[in-house]
Amino acid sequence: MNKILVIGHLNPDTDSITSAISFSFLQNQLGKNTEAVALGECNEETLFALNYFKFDAPRIIDRASNDTKDVMLVDHNEFQQAVSDISELNILAVIDHHRIANFQTASPLYYRAEAVGCTQTIILKIFKENSIAIPKNIAGLMLSGIISDTLLFKSPTCTEEDVRAAEELSSIAEVDINSYGLDLLKAGTNLSNKTAEQLIHLDAKSFEVHGKKIVVSQVNAIDFSDILSRKNEILDVLNHTISESSLDLFVFVITNILEGDSKMISAGGLINECEKAFNTKFIDNEAFLKGVVSRKKQIIPSLMDALS
Amino acid sequence: MNKILVIGHLNPDTDSITSAISFSFLQNQLGKNTEAVALGECNEETLFALNYFKFDAPRIIDRASNDTKDVMLVDHNEFQQAVSDISELNILAVIDHHRIANFQTASPLYYRAEAVGCTQTIILKIFKENSIAIPKNIAGLMLSGIISDTLLFKSPTCTEEDVRAAEELSSIAEVDINSYGLDLLKAGTNLSNKTAEQLIHLDAKSFEVHGKKIVVSQVNAIDFSDILSRKNEILDVLNHTISESSLDLFVFVITNILEGDSKMISAGGLINECEKAFNTKFIDNEAFLKGVVSRKKQIIPSLMDALS
Repeated sequence: MNKILVIGHLNPDTDSITSAISFSFLQNQLGKNTEAVALGECNEETLFALNYFKFDAPRIIDRASNDTKDVMLVDHNEFQQAVSDISELNILAVIDHHRIANFQTASPLYYRAEAVGCTQTIILKIFKENSIAIPKNIAGLMLSGIISDTLLFKSPTCTEEDVRAAEELSSIAEVDINSYGLDLLKAGTNLSNKTAEQLIHLDAKSFEVHGKKIVVSQVNAIDFSDILSRKNEILDVLNHTISESSLDLFVFVITNILEGDSKMISAGGLINECEKAFNTKFIDNEAFLKGVVSRKKQIIPSLMDALS
Repeated sequence: MNKILVIGHLNPDTDSITSAISFSFLQNQLGKNTEAVALGECNEETLFALNYFKFDAPRIIDRASNDTKDVMLVDHNEFQQAVSDISELNILAVIDHHRIANFQTASPLYYRAEAVGCTQTIILKIFKENSIAIPKNIAGLMLSGIISDTLLFKSPTCTEEDVRAAEELSSIAEVDINSYGLDLLKAGTNLSNKTAEQLIHLDAKSFEVHGKKIVVSQVNAIDFSDILSRKNEILDVLNHTISESSLDLFVFVITNILEGDSKMISAGGLINECEKAFNTKFIDNEAFLKGVVSRKKQIIPSLMDALS
């Protein structure tokens, strides 16, 4: 039987890594021969979850076609966020909760997207539809994905379905959502051993809007000052990346997971449009965004509006 | 509550019209305010099904934004097959069984595609997942969609899921699949009152492959000679359409639903590539294709291969 790779997005986060693992497990139970792989190193938060539930980090690849032509994508669809040889591959399935753009196939496929807070909430449904039992440690990983993507239900992307799914998974995994959840999120804020270069690429996503190249990257913190103390160093690498990759805007977002607010450090030719997008003034490239925590639901749509 | 239009593709076929009706019914049961509309007149086959199960043909629109910004698409996703103002609309949901291409959204959405023979097979699952009872006449329309798209299970696009769905729906609708199915398909072959112009546009789909503009149109017959007797007239309108719309290829397929074979009348600058695609020779622009009945699974992929 053809090997199938199950792949999350570039600069993988906890939802992306754990969804690849849980969806690969599900597909193998359905008789497929799949392997979960990753497009980069796991971040500290993801490593905490993998370690807690006793999983190894998935193998890292940068091309799929050395292994196989057949892939399934989780937690992304836009080709610029996908494995480098995506346009040569046969995409059998996509499970996602993002907008659809820069994506196409030659043949019909299984595509399952819903406007929920986390890919794992959709994968849980597919487990149930196929009457496949979820092992305790897989349930723990799935719960970790939901906690991470919804910031423990604080994000405006979080739906009632995500909350119900997390409750169901926590009882299978036998962990307390709140105490495990805070430990998980705090693990992700341990960024002291990262260089500024690593920091801005840790969870960076690229977008093209009307021909403009934009990167929006996001890290979590429990105190803004941990990261803002390195602001000059961060601004230097932002500017360097912008000129090296011919970007029009690089937005680096620091989200305080306890308060539910963000600070933004932005640079690039479109910085005035970025001010308009968030109805704010940058002072030394920095702005405070009250109540903003979601890249997908709050940051990207505002930027797209301002640029159109 | 915002009105939502549920829309099938241009040059609507039975799956497209009936899926709009059944999915609109389902959404209304879930509390939404939707209306099924169509992007053109119903064909003879669809009218037979609507008449049999006592439905009116959906209202025809060419723009959605006179009514609303919010739409759900069934049986298509490619923008060139969609309502004319699609790029200004908010696409809330897509239920489809085709490849994904030339499609994008600004926001996350509900997207449900599977590689099955008919959109109705997927809609049946969504009825079940939401525990919504299917009325007898809606079941009859859904069954009609499956019979039409799978050519009464003869098409290579037909899966076991489509067969099981049709059996389940036929028992709710209380009709015999085979006798009703043959009557339905035969109704669609009654094309004597169509002009050649109408004939070639009845079920025409446009594609762009590597910058080349291609139209593939298909009609069903129970005897090739019914349509081939008008071949010269058909070739005239093919050539006229090609020069008027700057097409590179127009493929007109006549499928014998009793034998499961097709004849193809082709014209345009890429006719040699078309010969290669089907490993055949056109004699006076005409070729016989043994065992070919599916545009999606047999004709389009061969053309795409030959043109790439």
